[in-house]
Amino acid sequence: MKFEFLNPTRIVFGAGSLSRLGEFASRYGKRALVVTGGGSIKRNGTFDRAIKSLKDAGVSVYECAGVEPNPRITSVRRGAETARQNGCDMVIAVGGGSVMDASKVMAAAALYDGDPWNMILHGQEKVHVPTEALPITTVPTLAATGSETNCGAVISNEETQEKSFMMTECLYPKVALLDPELTMSVPKDQTAYGVCDLITHVTEGYFNGTGNTPIQDRFAEGVILTAMEYGPKAIADGRDLDARTQVQWAASVALIGWVQSGAGSMGSPVHMIEHTVSAYHDITHATGLSIINPSWMRFAAKTNTSKFVQFAERIFGLPAKGPEDMECALSGIDRFEEFLKSIGCLTRFSELGIDGKLIGTYAKETLRIMHDDKGMLQARTPMSEADIVEVLKAAL
Amino acid sequence: MKFEFLNPTRIVFGAGSLSRLGEFASRYGKRALVVTGGGSIKRNGTFDRAIKSLKDAGVSVYECAGVEPNPRITSVRRGAETARQNGCDMVIAVGGGSVMDASKVMAAAALYDGDPWNMILHGQEKVHVPTEALPITTVPTLAATGSETNCGAVISNEETQEKSFMMTECLYPKVALLDPELTMSVPKDQTAYGVCDLITHVTEGYFNGTGNTPIQDRFAEGVILTAMEYGPKAIADGRDLDARTQVQWAASVALIGWVQSGAGSMGSPVHMIEHTVSAYHDITHATGLSIINPSWMRFAAKTNTSKFVQFAERIFGLPAKGPEDMECALSGIDRFEEFLKSIGCLTRFSELGIDGKLIGTYAKETLRIMHDDKGMLQARTPMSEADIVEVLKAAL
Repeated sequence: MKFEFLNPTRIVFGAGSLSRLGEFASRYGKRALVVTGGGSIKRNGTFDRAIKSLKDAGVSVYECAGVEPNPRITSVRRGAETARQNGCDMVIAVGGGSVMDASKVMAAAALYDGDPWNMILHGQEKVHVPTEALPITTVPTLAATGSETNCGAVISNEETQEKSFMMTECLYPKVALLDPELTMSVPKDQTAYGVCDLITHVTEGYFNGTGNTPIQDRFAEGVILTAMEYGPKAIADGRDLDARTQVQWAASVALIGWVQSGAGSMGSPVHMIEHTVSAYHDITHATGLSIINPSWMRFAAKTNTSKFVQFAERIFGLPAKGPEDMECALSGIDRFEEFLKSIGCLTRFSELGIDGKLIGTYAKETLRIMHDDKGMLQARTPMSEADIVEVLKAAL
Repeated sequence: MKFEFLNPTRIVFGAGSLSRLGEFASRYGKRALVVTGGGSIKRNGTFDRAIKSLKDAGVSVYECAGVEPNPRITSVRRGAETARQNGCDMVIAVGGGSVMDASKVMAAAALYDGDPWNMILHGQEKVHVPTEALPITTVPTLAATGSETNCGAVISNEETQEKSFMMTECLYPKVALLDPELTMSVPKDQTAYGVCDLITHVTEGYFNGTGNTPIQDRFAEGVILTAMEYGPKAIADGRDLDARTQVQWAASVALIGWVQSGAGSMGSPVHMIEHTVSAYHDITHATGLSIINPSWMRFAAKTNTSKFVQFAERIFGLPAKGPEDMECALSGIDRFEEFLKSIGCLTRFSELGIDGKLIGTYAKETLRIMHDDKGMLQARTPMSEADIVEVLKAAL
């Protein structure tokens, strides 16, 4: 275990905390670029409440609306331009993961003279790594990505059909204002995919770590168990504030770094493969994860059996004949897939009408965007093009 | 669950990280006050390696040596004076919890014109809460207090026989350099009390929280289970780097805030009572905790039975007849006390030659230093003077 960890984001958690947005924002400036996505926050009153809190605190608002579910670099450019033209001294994201991701990149882009796409890893020779960004405040309206408390962002380029990420310290939000009340109007299907999303963030680290990280394992299992207990409650009754509270906290904790720190993650293969697929098909990120993750798990269990046995034992209480009991490992994965189906998540590409014609292309593209010096996709068991094809075929 | 959480400390973890001290320190200045305790770090080479790393990075060193096991306000005054006289622009703590606690207060005191004792809560009308401190780097040489990654400090006043604390954001270390190799020469008894100390930090939050905090509970249990698995290994073989690594990480995680955030802790009664006892007797903090904690648990289980049943089930795998099974709850506490004894910790005051003559005084003093508006000691079940006496008597 050798690692560095830093997460300087101030978390303000609790039902009703939206009303404190202005109080926190006013610590960072007077002119806010407020970034939003679709219209749901305008219909349900969240947007108006956010704006009122800001204005009451003397903060002027300049809006960048309409960020897409897979946020596009064109939106980032537009938001950064709005920030510059209006002399904004901070960026506030009110929305889901895509709004927060786009906001972070806008905050850095507003202080960078080049094209923001230079900051996104996409196979180019030299990535521009920013060291400064406008202060960012996140207000998630969906419990899913954990983007609210980390320094990463995923951006798509619609011209080149690329989808990739950036991650650097200056993108840490100053404040993450987590108000589970805002998630009460999220529909059942989005709630379910949020649960899938947060669990996948945890399983990526859990199964791609170095091993021998007992505290991190227990933390990961704690988040998964909690999400599996309270997720179905939040789906069954969206007004169940306790369930919404636990799911929101699970989603944030899943990516805040507490679970991953020191776990020595060697990659996020499910995310990397999903990014390529959803660059070709406009499916939501979590749907792709729900389909790819169980299939990837069956692939990874072949070489990392004991960790999947631990997962089966501790998450589902399955009995194991020993640490290398492959039958137990596979039963755990089956149970996990059954859980995803039980909350309404899709687990096969065919359910989306996606056939296997482009599977070779997805595999090649994934490796073009990220590969190690042997040309493999980084993971605990590095993946070749054939391995990625195998995982995707099994998910058809 | 309503809370704010912030922990901006950069954690640098891993065997060998001491050699990077100069690299990190040089980000914050050129002249370091280096604070140390007894002579062990000078005998085992840790001090020389720390100084070499600093000098190689161009950082001048001014030492404040001899901080006591229960750090005294007189040492704080002395260190702050040394920092001021030499124009130090940072403070580096190399030692155990007492060295780190004293260093944090010195860092604030160096920028404060008043007497540093004004900053320590001790029943005075007005506490001085500092908003700035010199940048602090912590290098723990003992896995125990978790002081390395938090913003609290406990200080004794030998003139008034008071021992109390301060806790404020400006005391967060900029960097916590956690090198488990440094703990390999810690003797068996100190290692055992370190394990007791870290577990007590977790149980205080676990048993004094609001309840209905499933993720925090799992996290707490994960830290306790890990400490109970690897602690005995580190005690059996001090050179077992893997065991030292897990115990060091458990000690830091226990107080970094990840376990407590949102758990709604209503107090730390075991710590508050212990502080009073060890202000009267020069016993180490963890010995006091080891004696008071099981006794306090039996008191608290009377009103918070279900949480103690969960503890018995999840930590010791004991069967429960139901969530209010007091027999199961008490068996769990017995098993916990047996664990403490098995690693060599004392669990009775009589083993230290402390009789019950001053018990009434300890109870009164504890309440004088901290009480709620009804005159009770803050805890999930607030404690009267008679309650504190009951707990202390049962621990004789």
